[in-house]
Amino acid sequence: MTASTRTWNGADTGSEHMRLDDGSLNQLFLEARTHNKWLGTPVDDALLRELYGLTKFAPTSANSQPMRLVFVKSREAKERLKPALAPANVDKVMTAPVTAIVAHDLEFFEQLPKLMPHVDARSWFANRPAAQIERAAYQAGSMQGAYLILAARALGLDTGPIGGFDNAKVDAAFFPGGTWRSNFLVNLGYGDPAGVFPRNPRLDFDEACRID
Amino acid sequence: MTASTRTWNGADTGSEHMRLDDGSLNQLFLEARTHNKWLGTPVDDALLRELYGLTKFAPTSANSQPMRLVFVKSREAKERLKPALAPANVDKVMTAPVTAIVAHDLEFFEQLPKLMPHVDARSWFANRPAAQIERAAYQAGSMQGAYLILAARALGLDTGPIGGFDNAKVDAAFFPGGTWRSNFLVNLGYGDPAGVFPRNPRLDFDEACRID
Repeated sequence: MTASTRTWNGADTGSEHMRLDDGSLNQLFLEARTHNKWLGTPVDDALLRELYGLTKFAPTSANSQPMRLVFVKSREAKERLKPALAPANVDKVMTAPVTAIVAHDLEFFEQLPKLMPHVDARSWFANRPAAQIERAAYQAGSMQGAYLILAARALGLDTGPIGGFDNAKVDAAFFPGGTWRSNFLVNLGYGDPAGVFPRNPRLDFDEACRID
Repeated sequence: MTASTRTWNGADTGSEHMRLDDGSLNQLFLEARTHNKWLGTPVDDALLRELYGLTKFAPTSANSQPMRLVFVKSREAKERLKPALAPANVDKVMTAPVTAIVAHDLEFFEQLPKLMPHVDARSWFANRPAAQIERAAYQAGSMQGAYLILAARALGLDTGPIGGFDNAKVDAAFFPGGTWRSNFLVNLGYGDPAGVFPRNPRLDFDEACRID
């Protein structure tokens, strides 16, 4: 990249960045789909580490990084997850090479002296009511789960996010007595296009946005 | 793209996708930074429309799409936003070409007959307690705000997300009497690298993740 590049409309922005190519925008957003059926191709642990290595750099409030991940991969762990799933989601999860439990740590603020060393960011959270701490973890953890989905697509993986499960059962099975709480699941693997549903509508710009 | 491509480690996945090139991964994740100072380059309304046109396709629970956006761009609108900002964020916001208010509609479920036409998804939300509806909007709206940040980077924009402001004041100034609620702000423009702070640490894989 040079110090000054031209962007989507040919204007010189003075920025170091430019619009990604159309193939990348298609893969990340325009043609990406939620997958329900999986090819047999496995997902290596090294790829999961690379996936987190991208995801972790995207921004969170006060650099709080509350997201915690369990990559459910072994047969034993999948069986532990199974009783928490809504019936419609059992096959999708049990056949996916990996299912990520996107969770957050309710004691995320204990890491802030390391993550935000120049200020006492721990004190911004530690003495607040539990509901406020949970809300902060839920916001930033949800954002990090969204980054995870797009990072997976950037690495050529297909994703299948899932909300239909019993959070309390997952927490009891994977985080007994701990401070991690499940938010949503994301199946990861290489999807079979034959299992993709027709795309549902999206809100138009003028339904969801305004320019003031 | 062909029906079968090789990925990051040379394995044939059978998938239609492949790993994005290093420059794209750097721009989206590895080298992307939160920006605080802005070059004078403006951001066209057409680019804001393209930005939403990418963001809207990323997944939300039940295709609920609760995010609503106000692109604060005019001097008048910036002045309306100003009194709600924490002092440390005033200059960043007032000098940014655009500040997006990432909000969510508490009545998002009224759109579900259109967005999820094959089932009665409206009834999954409409009769639940207000706190549960708000929580669903907060989760998916936060995820969509995260997608917005990465979509902006994909289009060559720099971003500066901001949580330090008075939500009630923003809601009163921009959504009086309505059902939209502010979540966080995202400055959008072309950043001056001289205004970027040193990068804070991230949690390592083994601190935030496990493979079960």
